Amino acid sequence: MSELRKDPVTGRWVIISTERGRRPSDFNNHKNKPKGGFCPFCPGNEDKTPPEILAFRPDGSPRNGPGWQLRVVPNKFPALRVEGELHREGIGVYDKMSGIGAHEVIIETPHHEETLTSLPPKRFEDVLWAYRERMLDLRKDIRLRYAMIFKNHGEEAGATLEHSHSQLIALPIVPHLVAEEMAGAREFYRYKERCIFCDIVRQEIQQGERIILENNDFLVIAPFASFSPFESWILPKRHNSSFVDSQIHEVQSLALIFAETLRRLEKALNYPPYNFTLHTAPFNERSLEYYHWHLEIIPKLTKFAGFEWGSGFFINPTPPEEAAKFLRELIV
Amino acid sequence: MSELRKDPVTGRWVIISTERGRRPSDFNNHKNKPKGGFCPFCPGNEDKTPPEILAFRPDGSPRNGPGWQLRVVPNKFPALRVEGELHREGIGVYDKMSGIGAHEVIIETPHHEETLTSLPPKRFEDVLWAYRERMLDLRKDIRLRYAMIFKNHGEEAGATLEHSHSQLIALPIVPHLVAEEMAGAREFYRYKERCIFCDIVRQEIQQGERIILENNDFLVIAPFASFSPFESWILPKRHNSSFVDSQIHEVQSLALIFAETLRRLEKALNYPPYNFTLHTAPFNERSLEYYHWHLEIIPKLTKFAGFEWGSGFFINPTPPEEAAKFLRELIV
Repeated sequence: MSELRKDPVTGRWVIISTERGRRPSDFNNHKNKPKGGFCPFCPGNEDKTPPEILAFRPDGSPRNGPGWQLRVVPNKFPALRVEGELHREGIGVYDKMSGIGAHEVIIETPHHEETLTSLPPKRFEDVLWAYRERMLDLRKDIRLRYAMIFKNHGEEAGATLEHSHSQLIALPIVPHLVAEEMAGAREFYRYKERCIFCDIVRQEIQQGERIILENNDFLVIAPFASFSPFESWILPKRHNSSFVDSQIHEVQSLALIFAETLRRLEKALNYPPYNFTLHTAPFNERSLEYYHWHLEIIPKLTKFAGFEWGSGFFINPTPPEEAAKFLRELIV
Repeated sequence: MSELRKDPVTGRWVIISTERGRRPSDFNNHKNKPKGGFCPFCPGNEDKTPPEILAFRPDGSPRNGPGWQLRVVPNKFPALRVEGELHREGIGVYDKMSGIGAHEVIIETPHHEETLTSLPPKRFEDVLWAYRERMLDLRKDIRLRYAMIFKNHGEEAGATLEHSHSQLIALPIVPHLVAEEMAGAREFYRYKERCIFCDIVRQEIQQGERIILENNDFLVIAPFASFSPFESWILPKRHNSSFVDSQIHEVQSLALIFAETLRRLEKALNYPPYNFTLHTAPFNERSLEYYHWHLEIIPKLTKFAGFEWGSGFFINPTPPEEAAKFLRELIV
């Protein structure tokens, strides 16, 4: 059983994932990981994953067999589990709770060699619908407060399996960075009576220099204080705190601009490893005036080192204005 | 000129280092970095670094030539510079200031093949004295608020040069993670009238299960909420908020236990890449009752991925109790 533990100084929580428990010897050959030919996410190997939670099967094929176009399954080595009670405990100055949550894998395509950016628009859109459907389902569980959707693409970005997939981790607490974002946005709202993200959208459209892409519903920018080179944010133009409350045409529009952003990053940076994360309001907070859901894409180009770990202060060698200009002017 | 920029939502600052300005093409071959045979940190190449700020020269040899045992020089490609005025500016919702600060390199040994852990005790101690001397000097500059000492060991941990060295970055603002630590510790103090770190030291000595090493002056533990496998903290037993106020016997004692901790990590994990960072009170805060300086060592064993970037929530596969037991019982 995993545990959630709180750092008594900073108040940050970590997951101590005892089920993955690694001994020192597991880290010794950290440079020579074996690469097997077998893929548990390929059609025909459905019995190598836990039973599916959701699948899009245009051909009406039966569960847990081939025929699917997209498949959501529990992570076989989950950081957190849905089973059990949420038990909280203090030990002297320390606080912990049981590792209740959900850890799911969204297998984006049945084809091993296909990537998100090579999917036709409708199938890219389906990935977004799957995210939404899983979030709507998980928020019924009153123990859970937040679901983080993310993707690790490429080994350097933390992917352990090559077959294109994203992940969802649902947590019994609102994660630190999200809480920090929400607190900052709330403070701004109290002061100005405006959403800080709406202000960012307006100022970026007016200034223009950090715009990467734009359509009717979304703005893609290199954020002013990018912590990483070529960091890209996708912001809905319409104020909306929760991704699950997106309208149908917005999800369609997002699929197009999201795919185009990833394609430009791939072309500009020669298919870099990358991560993306979906930032949305916690489960029990709906229609917040001060928060604004968005997507953050981070190509993995630099190594974060002692200074960053110790200070929380990042050094970014590429001004976002230069990154945006390059991506904006790219011919794809 | 570099710039410090503030994220308008979270309030975090980043350094946009325009002097290192990288174009997309610089990232394209991120896997095939050339390794030259030339080392600017080796004796005889003193003219390949900016002129030295400090050097320990037992033989009385002249500045900027061979004969030194330890040498501190400005970073040739600094993230921040001492020259210029600290200019602050707002642009709509955004805030920035000029990249004033210092970025120095502590070359720990003249011998290219020597590592921190192979230094005799007195020379390891000298590295700590050099840290102290540089901090005492930099805090005279009233524009600067904090100096972060850190080391990146091994390419995977962000080291760009092999020759053993640590770094110092002095900043015009207190970095986010330090401010967060201080705020958490202050809150605890207000509530309990005790230093949280002193409480941690007491509880860890009493529980014993997370102790790695201990001597008269220091305790080395795997912290309760370790975010990374084999994370190790060195805490002084005597309450003291600032590293520079350490007593002579404490620096001697630290050199011994610090070297021993690193040697155990090297043996346990087969010479892993690692980072360490020195957490100490900001320049203008002296003798704080609620804060307690300490060292954090992080072997680079896992990749941080989308979930961690998006949530600030870390998944650690190795319980600190297991890591501590292994390191404590190791025969070096």
